Amino acid sequence: MELNVPLQVIGIARTGRTALDATPIQAAINRAEHGTIEIGEAYKDGLDGLAGFSYAWMLTWLHESGDPALEPDMSRMPFLLRKQGRRVGLFATRAPRRANPIGLSLIEILAVTGSSVSFAGVDVIDGTPVIDIKPYVTKFDRPPVDPHCGWFDEVTVEQGVTPAKLTPPDL
Amino acid sequence: MELNVPLQVIGIARTGRTALDATPIQAAINRAEHGTIEIGEAYKDGLDGLAGFSYAWMLTWLHESGDPALEPDMSRMPFLLRKQGRRVGLFATRAPRRANPIGLSLIEILAVTGSSVSFAGVDVIDGTPVIDIKPYVTKFDRPPVDPHCGWFDEVTVEQGVTPAKLTPPDL
Repeated sequence: MELNVPLQVIGIARTGRTALDATPIQAAINRAEHGTIEIGEAYKDGLDGLAGFSYAWMLTWLHESGDPALEPDMSRMPFLLRKQGRRVGLFATRAPRRANPIGLSLIEILAVTGSSVSFAGVDVIDGTPVIDIKPYVTKFDRPPVDPHCGWFDEVTVEQGVTPAKLTPPDL
Repeated sequence: MELNVPLQVIGIARTGRTALDATPIQAAINRAEHGTIEIGEAYKDGLDGLAGFSYAWMLTWLHESGDPALEPDMSRMPFLLRKQGRRVGLFATRAPRRANPIGLSLIEILAVTGSSVSFAGVDVIDGTPVIDIKPYVTKFDRPPVDPHCGWFDEVTVEQGVTPAKLTPPDL
């Protein structure tokens, strides 16, 4: 079933990354790198108060994550499981190619100036459409206890790791 | 700017809530209440491995959060700030009526059976379209230090609070 609704682009992410395979897979493992969100004129007044938050969720439309006409595979071998040759379901992964390619990046807010949001933690390529920003609120966004994190508990995620670094050169 | 892309509904949230104003504003403050996601046949194989995670992000399309033809106000007075009469920008709130009414609920995974996901933490009404499920991964989703949470640091959020409970009766 499809929802017949238009998605609004509230801004564009500006980063130093252009190649998907050479872009770190999560903002949290690439905290040192900075980027900017250029917010559209119609939305800039919505930034009032955002600077008081240390972190925010940047929701993006991962427009280059695959051919939208192709149904994404429900069974996946994430980059981090390639060595083990293990597959898991799409909804047990953070893979960018999804039923809806919506990215969820935990960015650190560095500054909000006019219609520009400077952030730390880059995991999207330059030009990625931003569809929402939500402030990180500890009382809403942190589980009450240390949670089990499935197969992620069994793998090491190195700082700055990219798909290219995890792909054996002969594949 | 609009993105000309169709959003896929991967499932439907089944909850005991039908009135928006009487529905708790976040899953985290309504942990005792259970709901279910009924996943569409085409997506059920994507659930493999999800049961190994304690928590997940349920992304929803908040289809009843307002007239989609009306531009949402960029300046807001959240329910939690009504007493103070204070306004903040939309992107410094978790209000459901947004440029794109995408909900982000931190649900506790109770069981995954066939095409059904049982969860704890209800903040959506029955029938809400689910557009993604992402596993909660502590190393990606928890800030490295206790973050500032803007105006949320100055308000008390009571368990189970709903918009109706926060609206003075004479408004």
